[in-house]
Amino acid sequence: MTMSATMERQDQQGGLAWPVTAALRALAMDAVEAAKSGHPGAPMGMAEIAAVLWRSVLRHDPADPRWPDRDRFVLSNGHASMLLYGLLHLTGYDLPIAELKRFRQLHSKTPGHPEYGMTPGVETTTGPLGQGLANAVGMALAEKTLAAQFNRPGHTIVDHRTFVFMGDGCLMEGISHEAASLAGRLGLGKLIAFWDDNGISIDGKVEEWFADDTPARFRAYGWQVLTGVDGHDPAAIAAAVALALAATDRPTLICCRTTIGRGAPTKQGHQDTHGAPLGAEEIARARAAMGWTHPPFHVPADVYAAWDCRPRGKALSADWATRFAAYAAAFPELAAEFERRLAGDLPEGFAAAADAALAAETAAGSVATRKAGQIALAAFAKALPELIGGSADLAHSNLTIHPGSTPVTRDPAGNQIFFGVREFGMSAIANGLALHGGFVPFVATFLVFSDYARNAVRMSALMGLRVVYVFTHDSIAVGEDGPTHQPIEHVESLRLIPGLDVWRPADAAETAVAWQAALARRDGPTALILTRQALPPQPAEGLADLPVTGARVLVGPADAVATLVATGSEVRIATEAAAALAAEGVPVRVVSMPCVERFEAQPAAARAALVPADRPVVVIEAGTTRGWRGLAGPSGRVIGLDRFGESAPEKDLLKLFGFTAAAVAEVVRETVGAAA
Amino acid sequence: MTMSATMERQDQQGGLAWPVTAALRALAMDAVEAAKSGHPGAPMGMAEIAAVLWRSVLRHDPADPRWPDRDRFVLSNGHASMLLYGLLHLTGYDLPIAELKRFRQLHSKTPGHPEYGMTPGVETTTGPLGQGLANAVGMALAEKTLAAQFNRPGHTIVDHRTFVFMGDGCLMEGISHEAASLAGRLGLGKLIAFWDDNGISIDGKVEEWFADDTPARFRAYGWQVLTGVDGHDPAAIAAAVALALAATDRPTLICCRTTIGRGAPTKQGHQDTHGAPLGAEEIARARAAMGWTHPPFHVPADVYAAWDCRPRGKALSADWATRFAAYAAAFPELAAEFERRLAGDLPEGFAAAADAALAAETAAGSVATRKAGQIALAAFAKALPELIGGSADLAHSNLTIHPGSTPVTRDPAGNQIFFGVREFGMSAIANGLALHGGFVPFVATFLVFSDYARNAVRMSALMGLRVVYVFTHDSIAVGEDGPTHQPIEHVESLRLIPGLDVWRPADAAETAVAWQAALARRDGPTALILTRQALPPQPAEGLADLPVTGARVLVGPADAVATLVATGSEVRIATEAAAALAAEGVPVRVVSMPCVERFEAQPAAARAALVPADRPVVVIEAGTTRGWRGLAGPSGRVIGLDRFGESAPEKDLLKLFGFTAAAVAEVVRETVGAAA
Repeated sequence: MTMSATMERQDQQGGLAWPVTAALRALAMDAVEAAKSGHPGAPMGMAEIAAVLWRSVLRHDPADPRWPDRDRFVLSNGHASMLLYGLLHLTGYDLPIAELKRFRQLHSKTPGHPEYGMTPGVETTTGPLGQGLANAVGMALAEKTLAAQFNRPGHTIVDHRTFVFMGDGCLMEGISHEAASLAGRLGLGKLIAFWDDNGISIDGKVEEWFADDTPARFRAYGWQVLTGVDGHDPAAIAAAVALALAATDRPTLICCRTTIGRGAPTKQGHQDTHGAPLGAEEIARARAAMGWTHPPFHVPADVYAAWDCRPRGKALSADWATRFAAYAAAFPELAAEFERRLAGDLPEGFAAAADAALAAETAAGSVATRKAGQIALAAFAKALPELIGGSADLAHSNLTIHPGSTPVTRDPAGNQIFFGVREFGMSAIANGLALHGGFVPFVATFLVFSDYARNAVRMSALMGLRVVYVFTHDSIAVGEDGPTHQPIEHVESLRLIPGLDVWRPADAAETAVAWQAALARRDGPTALILTRQALPPQPAEGLADLPVTGARVLVGPADAVATLVATGSEVRIATEAAAALAAEGVPVRVVSMPCVERFEAQPAAARAALVPADRPVVVIEAGTTRGWRGLAGPSGRVIGLDRFGESAPEKDLLKLFGFTAAAVAEVVRETVGAAA
Repeated sequence: MTMSATMERQDQQGGLAWPVTAALRALAMDAVEAAKSGHPGAPMGMAEIAAVLWRSVLRHDPADPRWPDRDRFVLSNGHASMLLYGLLHLTGYDLPIAELKRFRQLHSKTPGHPEYGMTPGVETTTGPLGQGLANAVGMALAEKTLAAQFNRPGHTIVDHRTFVFMGDGCLMEGISHEAASLAGRLGLGKLIAFWDDNGISIDGKVEEWFADDTPARFRAYGWQVLTGVDGHDPAAIAAAVALALAATDRPTLICCRTTIGRGAPTKQGHQDTHGAPLGAEEIARARAAMGWTHPPFHVPADVYAAWDCRPRGKALSADWATRFAAYAAAFPELAAEFERRLAGDLPEGFAAAADAALAAETAAGSVATRKAGQIALAAFAKALPELIGGSADLAHSNLTIHPGSTPVTRDPAGNQIFFGVREFGMSAIANGLALHGGFVPFVATFLVFSDYARNAVRMSALMGLRVVYVFTHDSIAVGEDGPTHQPIEHVESLRLIPGLDVWRPADAAETAVAWQAALARRDGPTALILTRQALPPQPAEGLADLPVTGARVLVGPADAVATLVATGSEVRIATEAAAALAAEGVPVRVVSMPCVERFEAQPAAARAALVPADRPVVVIEAGTTRGWRGLAGPSGRVIGLDRFGESAPEKDLLKLFGFTAAAVAEVVRETVGAAA
């Protein structure tokens, strides 16, 4: 390392001419200018904070971005992506300058917002404000729980921190309340958040719409709050970080007063630096102010050397590897289990657990699928210690608490999280648990309140995370609680999220298969749509194929004149209607289609083998019809509900809205008659 | 009024035997028991708070529930509906005991959660936690703004308060942060919230998951916070309310320590009282403890008399009517305008404003539809002073700020709200503005972040409120910001919400029509889906009919062999493809369908006149395809996007994903060829 004495002094004193930060600022300005779009303001405003954290504090190994015991870093203000790309590039990750030159271009490793899986060192996809903070809470919880599960006296193999940057926008979002409140209650002492307190959001000076006493607010959550930190003073930042590292019983918020776009002589401190290129003239002036004489995208060798975190990172990860080897020698089974958990592989007992789940469901008989979900969860939890999760204050309604549940508040090695009434925070925390590794998270609420969590569900899908969403009370059959609690558009609406598998099982056995499919899936999230009310068991034919087919034939007379396709609780109605129709000489096929995504992923011939193209199709689902009209086609019908429900007992509503075997049979008669 | 001396003393001292509260508790127990479902815990825990507020403080007239200057009451913990029904019944609203006996039954006026429009005196639909608080913030803001717009020296015709009850669940929800933070900044001094601090939520003692110092948190928002109030002591409650009424510069939170299910001897203080009937035995014991010897649903005359708010209410509303008459004499035009605004009627100049908007759009030429939205908004705002709204920190991106905008923070009579980065709170506040009356609210964010606000949009639709949602940056054409900011499933997902009109205009003129339709609609909300990028103007044919037809023919050769249906920015691509196809002898029809809901509301013949049933249909929309497959039918095709986008310039993405005239023309050729 060849670092000048001047630069070493500036490591303490900072200043605009500090080459370390000038490099970050210049790269941000240059990349945004080259892309003709992007956000220079936050990267320039947070350069000193980032430099102190990444060069001296963050325990990371640029050569091994997946090193299990690395500190996690989350850029919750994801629009500041060029700050992160600059950091990754300068500290030595596999992100060459050519990629920075292609900022925001097609198939570059430097997309407009950081994307998990696209860029080494990016721990989560951010941009939708507030969610990064919640992801970080999930990561910190994962660290704490994993440490309690795997560390042994004299063998500390899990011991890292989670750092998060966030701006005013994150703090205005409601999810910041949910996540910070729970983090405080859980005492996540290794979570350290930096607030980029620049007083500016997109519409201008935040004082016009955001006048919270944020330090007081976070103290009210039980956080350590460090105020009055000059976010451009390396020594002040380092001193605050030292206090944050020392507090191990609660999370820390470091309030850093900064100037947005710092270094841009005429624009800094103004919202115009937030989300648009500074322009050639302003950039030239900024370069002059920083004494940065280098052309765009050029960083001199001594600055690279000052930033290079590879030697320190290699030492850190090598030390860990040595310690892990000692751990593996002392606890070979634990070490193997740790490696399995971190790799995301299912345990050897998974197939047996699935068999046990199915057997338990069969024994259960007629139960609500939420109850069947609990039965399956209990069976899988025995074999999968990586299962961790809970409900947003509905554990005994969603039935996501099971005999093996131990609250993390009572036992740090526990597996049950009481999330409180915080659906959005819960879901984004689950994403953080999944991103950290070592866990398969599940979360639960009423289906209608999936709305509250919707963008976090989307983020699970966008990142391809194995998160299981348990959404119960799935239709108007909720009954008396009325339209605020009765999902109508929700099942179909979830199906529209790319990459999310939506399972709506028809009985207990299908519920076990759905849980199995959700756990076996490595590349994305699953929503389990479960009933409040009991459903009778259906025949077992085709159950085992469901993870591939997404659908199965329950009633299949050779001479069927029509096909009834149903999901979930409406399958029972379909089979009853089919029995009535058969009795009067109208044979119909009944198909249960718990997972449309898996059905549609099949070749056309396989789909036609389940739902023949040459006979009328009647679809039954107690929800919006629009999504099913393609399958029903012009000769078919969709029996659904394109209006809100009512508050009344279940049976009255099913009758009112035509979800009875008699009403379905009548529609089939009409459809067959029209086709004949 | 014949009230015993004992009862009068108990008005000060309370106690379980206080007949006023015993009646409320008994009615809640009885109704839940009769319905075999419901929530007795909160009604019983908040009985004293409710009695003090409704009998002595709330300025309401049971005989005239729509009296404009009444105080507003919001039950944010909507599961406590029987508390509200009991209050309405006992104070003299048109809600007879027969309706309480039919609690939660089909078509009763006493649904499981309070529903706006179903029951006199219910000001908003609640149940989804936290939103009631935000509705109340909207109501309080409406009062403050309406007062500033209409009151004149010596003539105070708008002067009422908004009271809200909320539980721990509301306070855990993120939306409580958004709403309370903004309420503090706006200094809504007439907003008074009661926190039912009973330490219990559904999963048990909240201390396990909710350990906030809530008073400190609300002080951090700038609220007056009154702590240590015994929520079962009428005198303590009254004293706190007096302090709340006196603070006119900021909202007040009254923290009331209560016991959930108070009066149920063995179950009180436990979560079991929350959401299930107490059972006959416990109810009998509670009756004994309260000295309440009456049979179910029976309230003695002297208790009715003690509750009767009709005489006081009549005096209050009559006094207001007298004052309003004097106001009308002094300011006849203002008074007429006030009455028009409260009635929700559009002004006489509405049609002219619509013409002006359309003319301005025509003059604008090729603009982004977000810009066209701003042009229309500016034109309508001149004629509609009831238009109030703003953006969640994207005013200059959504283009919802216009030349007539005045921030409510600078001028209390203003019309522009800087909501901050608070999409969910913003939308629920808009519902409150609409519910209050006198305003037509609009709110804005990026379409992708409609996810954050989704359940509030649903609540607008469920309540049938005229709220205009402006969702811009509506497709992958957002470009460089990448998949976190590119809507895919959102347009279709909004279409699934019953009662919500979704408009995706193809050009500036259609945008003006969409705004016009949104404002003219009295019975529900509208989402305007607008582009970031410029779109060329399309022919004017059929524009005027769009509010009825939802679709129009842009290219209509008599011999068309196929129909291209497109929305929004894809209409341009469809017309270009049609031109290319026409040049090679393949005549196709092009239909712009900005509003599917209006199209589908038409008779089949009218729909077929626009989209002929006998020719192949190709639909183009840069979003999920599932919803369109019905219209396309088995012989047609849907050109859409069932995966997430990418970060890249717009033109690269449109090419990558096949949204070019050449790619569309090729699909049409294939489709026509297959059909031939």
